[in-house]
Amino acid sequence: MSSNLGRIGFKKMVDKNSHKPSAQHLEWERLAAIDNKSGETKNLGRVTSENITLKPIYFSSDLENTKAQEAVPGKSPYTRGPRATMYLGKPWTIRQYAGFSTAEESNQFYKQALREGQKGLSVAFDLATHRGYDSDHSRVSGDVGKAGVAIDSVEDMKLLFADIPLDEVSVSMTMNGAVLPVLGAFLVAAEESGVSQDKVSGTIQNDILKEYMVRNTFIFPPEPSLRIVGDIIEYASQKLPKFNSISISGYHMQEAGADAALELAFTLADGLEYVKIALSKGLPIDSFAPRLSFFFGIGMNFFMEISKLRAARMLWAELMTEFNPKLPQSSMLRTHCQTSGYSLTEQEPINNVVRTTIEAMAAVLGGTQSLHTNALDEAVSLPTDEAARVARNTQLILQHETDITHVVDPLGGSYFIESLTQELVNKARETLKEVAQAGGMAKAILSGMPKRKIEESAARKQARIDSGEELIIGVNSFQQTETQKQTPVRDIDNTEVRRGQIEKLKKIKSERNEKAVQSSLAKLTEAAESGKGNLLSLTIDAMRLRASVGEATEALVKVYGRYLPNHQVVSSVYLGSYSNMERLDEVRNRVEKFLKKNGRRPRILVAKLGQDGHDRGARVIGSGLSDLGFDVDIGPLFQTPEEVAKQAIENDVHVIGISSQAAGHKTLVPELIDALKKLKSEDILVVVGGVIPPQDYAFLEKKGVVAIFGPGTPIPDAADMILNKLEG
Amino acid sequence: MSSNLGRIGFKKMVDKNSHKPSAQHLEWERLAAIDNKSGETKNLGRVTSENITLKPIYFSSDLENTKAQEAVPGKSPYTRGPRATMYLGKPWTIRQYAGFSTAEESNQFYKQALREGQKGLSVAFDLATHRGYDSDHSRVSGDVGKAGVAIDSVEDMKLLFADIPLDEVSVSMTMNGAVLPVLGAFLVAAEESGVSQDKVSGTIQNDILKEYMVRNTFIFPPEPSLRIVGDIIEYASQKLPKFNSISISGYHMQEAGADAALELAFTLADGLEYVKIALSKGLPIDSFAPRLSFFFGIGMNFFMEISKLRAARMLWAELMTEFNPKLPQSSMLRTHCQTSGYSLTEQEPINNVVRTTIEAMAAVLGGTQSLHTNALDEAVSLPTDEAARVARNTQLILQHETDITHVVDPLGGSYFIESLTQELVNKARETLKEVAQAGGMAKAILSGMPKRKIEESAARKQARIDSGEELIIGVNSFQQTETQKQTPVRDIDNTEVRRGQIEKLKKIKSERNEKAVQSSLAKLTEAAESGKGNLLSLTIDAMRLRASVGEATEALVKVYGRYLPNHQVVSSVYLGSYSNMERLDEVRNRVEKFLKKNGRRPRILVAKLGQDGHDRGARVIGSGLSDLGFDVDIGPLFQTPEEVAKQAIENDVHVIGISSQAAGHKTLVPELIDALKKLKSEDILVVVGGVIPPQDYAFLEKKGVVAIFGPGTPIPDAADMILNKLEG
Repeated sequence: MSSNLGRIGFKKMVDKNSHKPSAQHLEWERLAAIDNKSGETKNLGRVTSENITLKPIYFSSDLENTKAQEAVPGKSPYTRGPRATMYLGKPWTIRQYAGFSTAEESNQFYKQALREGQKGLSVAFDLATHRGYDSDHSRVSGDVGKAGVAIDSVEDMKLLFADIPLDEVSVSMTMNGAVLPVLGAFLVAAEESGVSQDKVSGTIQNDILKEYMVRNTFIFPPEPSLRIVGDIIEYASQKLPKFNSISISGYHMQEAGADAALELAFTLADGLEYVKIALSKGLPIDSFAPRLSFFFGIGMNFFMEISKLRAARMLWAELMTEFNPKLPQSSMLRTHCQTSGYSLTEQEPINNVVRTTIEAMAAVLGGTQSLHTNALDEAVSLPTDEAARVARNTQLILQHETDITHVVDPLGGSYFIESLTQELVNKARETLKEVAQAGGMAKAILSGMPKRKIEESAARKQARIDSGEELIIGVNSFQQTETQKQTPVRDIDNTEVRRGQIEKLKKIKSERNEKAVQSSLAKLTEAAESGKGNLLSLTIDAMRLRASVGEATEALVKVYGRYLPNHQVVSSVYLGSYSNMERLDEVRNRVEKFLKKNGRRPRILVAKLGQDGHDRGARVIGSGLSDLGFDVDIGPLFQTPEEVAKQAIENDVHVIGISSQAAGHKTLVPELIDALKKLKSEDILVVVGGVIPPQDYAFLEKKGVVAIFGPGTPIPDAADMILNKLEG
Repeated sequence: MSSNLGRIGFKKMVDKNSHKPSAQHLEWERLAAIDNKSGETKNLGRVTSENITLKPIYFSSDLENTKAQEAVPGKSPYTRGPRATMYLGKPWTIRQYAGFSTAEESNQFYKQALREGQKGLSVAFDLATHRGYDSDHSRVSGDVGKAGVAIDSVEDMKLLFADIPLDEVSVSMTMNGAVLPVLGAFLVAAEESGVSQDKVSGTIQNDILKEYMVRNTFIFPPEPSLRIVGDIIEYASQKLPKFNSISISGYHMQEAGADAALELAFTLADGLEYVKIALSKGLPIDSFAPRLSFFFGIGMNFFMEISKLRAARMLWAELMTEFNPKLPQSSMLRTHCQTSGYSLTEQEPINNVVRTTIEAMAAVLGGTQSLHTNALDEAVSLPTDEAARVARNTQLILQHETDITHVVDPLGGSYFIESLTQELVNKARETLKEVAQAGGMAKAILSGMPKRKIEESAARKQARIDSGEELIIGVNSFQQTETQKQTPVRDIDNTEVRRGQIEKLKKIKSERNEKAVQSSLAKLTEAAESGKGNLLSLTIDAMRLRASVGEATEALVKVYGRYLPNHQVVSSVYLGSYSNMERLDEVRNRVEKFLKKNGRRPRILVAKLGQDGHDRGARVIGSGLSDLGFDVDIGPLFQTPEEVAKQAIENDVHVIGISSQAAGHKTLVPELIDALKKLKSEDILVVVGGVIPPQDYAFLEKKGVVAIFGPGTPIPDAADMILNKLEG
């Protein structure tokens, strides 16, 4: 970012970071003082969001504190790449994350993608599936088929991969909550298409820990969830030799606001926890460690992201030595990457092609094994076919039109990148130590520490953007002077998808051997109770008999229950990082006046509806409004419109702020307003923010929404708009 | 490029390139052999278009042959950057090349660009102006206002910069042929707006040598042209302290097909020639060398382009030592860069945003001082306002949303980049030696050597693309399976622009002191004859009195004449680099059949119309068709439609192939067809290729064009289409 994230004098820094500045450093300092005509040489260094001090220039002497000069690609600690030949033989895998509506529609989309140069698939499931609800469940009316494909059974899975050879095309599945029935359905579908389990290649995300921190598509409480992870690793180590049994994911931490050092540390700490779980099941380290894979987000800090991937490999190799693996692959970090969704803007979507290209280059120069590039319209909706094609072409162009794949680790040796890699390793080690002291990541998560650190990082970033210290082109700077065209978006007729799914479910249930299904589900419940048996193995049996995703989940919910966390928002962080005090005071004074006049502060319930667990926006805005003097209630996740209406009335709030990230707003927000009316509380105002295509604004306003905050709305402006409505 | 531009076994390479492979190299080799399961380690190295052998991996031992470890930014030889602080204080200048239609319209465009974040201006003039014709001249009816702005006098120049403070905004002008009257008009316009000559900052291209090689907007023969260059350098060294008196340009060589090493060598050789000319005028080296600037093209070979800019600085510093400058600035190469127009595709213009982003990053990581990023629609037309904004945003995003500007020369030390920099230096030195042996660049150009080398490089590249060895996404690979939308293009109503210009010229001529004008023009003619006096100084006098660009040019044409070169196309190069012999033989057999049946080979006149001198396409297609067995005539440049029609009839050709790059096709091609009709030779078929927006296809076909070749048409396909038409 261009901002003065704490610029510092480089003199001070040179003193701090190396014992004696090299002759080159001194010579450079002399020349830099001439450049800066005043003779001043201050303000040339920087402190990054990770609190890493960047020197203004790096020289070979800076390599002295690193082991960079000994590194060989394909050799531990793999800083220069997990494989010796990297992209020389075969470039990274172009693996685009996609899925929407029905299995049939998604299947068409996948086949088109494979025809147009994609190499692997990555399935996005809808939120109902993520949370283990069948499409006919009343809680998921707004979610079915919206932000991913609706999958209820093996039959849907077969439609999803029709005419796609699962022994040739590898499939990655982002699934954590309902990981058992979804993976089970996939393996049965593959089998029934003639591909046995030992031939299936791909990845299941199966990374439940980060769900409790940031992504919120868990179902069960942490402890049983970790048993499920262990059972899957066990099963895979025995029967799925070509399948990655877990994809330990930092991506969602970055999306939630984590800086690179936090993402790095918490992801590796999650990985360590999974290793320990597998070891505790008696699995030898080399039987599963080679099939652990990672997943990182790649944002706009080009050099930081390149260095992050290098640091991740170094650290993982170091951490794994503790377990004395014999196979080199056991300590070799392989990763998938995705460009940052957070960095995309609704304003001028074509700018997102620029951003995604920069990010894709960072992923590749950092040595990723596979890559998803976001589509230009993903700030507002699922990608259109056209936008998806551009995203894929971005990778094809990098692979085929440039010289980027021609040399292994082309940036190896760069004084800056090697130094930054080492700095990130050092920084992440500090956090890893903190996690170890807390007793490992599972315990740390229960204490709330990682979530808090990530939210603080998010609030700081939001404040820097809102106060104009960090620039986003077209959003808070260099805005378009002419009015913008509306971008076409992909809209899903969710009612129609749901109707079709319900019909299919009925048919499956009428044709299956009901007794056998119930008996297999009972075995699943029993295994949950006893703690014995492999849950994946038992789930596969049930799915083969055509149990549904919801049924297989319910069989476990009976024992484990559904987990609902409750976290407070962080406070004072937004305030502390917002650099324009005058603007803050303006809003705070307005709030004080409101207090004097009304006898209480403006009170808002910030809520999410349905199964949409992406709560960065909700939590940041809650934190910011609270810092501005509002009384803020944060609603629990996964509420129905009726539940939110009731809570708003109980808490006697002035406003409900709905944050919508998963395209359910057109169904769920009108239901909320209806519920308020039924409860005779239409005086409670409803405002909406998040990912709302401009095409939907008029619809929502007609339904009674009083204000819509597009992405990029600074929190003080949102506060002003809410006060206008309240006073209005 | 992804192709096997001659892959080679790396063992051989290691042996060849370094005396003893390092321990790391040997270890890597062992691991790479394991990776390549067969144990084979061949085919991992590559040979680039520059004939540089890339190793598959570089280590610190590879730095032994370089001086990389001693380099300090801001210190000779400036490998790591001309300034110590580079982008820390202020990033590179965003300088977009633009201009079209009238001065008034271009002025609006510039002001919008400056409002939206652009930092410097760069003027594109129309071809009439480039070639020193006023808008009312009969030879330029199709060119006025088309590919740039029409400027006839000081009055136009004043309109062009109305409300733009010329003491604050620096202006670059791409002008070579009519450099005297255009620079003169600019300086007078600045003066009359209150900005004296010593306050004006900017750059005049003034690089005539490359015009004879590749760009063809010369007016006079080489010798008097070089006097003009010298006079401008002299004038600037005395009166324009903030103005770059020349911009020594490799960009157009790259556009014409030069690989990085050729672009580098010929550009620096041009620079040396200009230094010698200035010295021969008695100017001390330090009086002008600090104001020499450079201009490079940046294509898709990311690492090659980064290294090229570093190598350019190293070499220039080395070359300048010969002249014993005292000021460090005299040997400090500063450069502007432009992303590659050649790399853009008409197919799926949005892919060009990806390409331009990659190229922009290479320019910046190579350390450019200013940058033009091409707009996504420039493969078919001048940029629309919207496309221009995206191009500008590309740079703003790099400057403000990433960490790319935070550290000086962030890639310094990379084993690969430092090695490649040195390899390019070595390669360019070979060519520089060849030029020196030919007696310098002016003489080398007269011998045709540089032009031939560049054309051979272009023909090789075309053959690799046509045969699918190099992939262009969306063009020869991964084509869109659905039909494409038409991209909106900027279309200039050239007749209207010309009408307005003619009116303005009439007015100026009626109001000026005619006698004074004629006397000042006579002095110019006299100075051309005598070889005495400074031509720029005299031209400024004439322009101040409101002589026109055309008149000031004619005053010199009287003495110098207009130059018309004649070059043969290269042969056998296309053939030798086309890897699919079967396809070639297919077409060649068809040509042989035509010969047998008709008694002679199909004969084509490849011609350009009007002042459009971009002849890469014409020359490559001529060369390719010739290799396929056609009889090929290449018409001289700058012909009127009537002249082309006459030549076609005289040469008794079957087909005229018009290559149009400068948007004159809608005026000039119908005139050609009319001329053929008038001369009763409508049996000669007309085909068109080059930059033709799809919107214009129907118009041209209605006028009688029998085939249009879009960009990306392989030459064998074009040959087939021509034969189809001939055989009816």
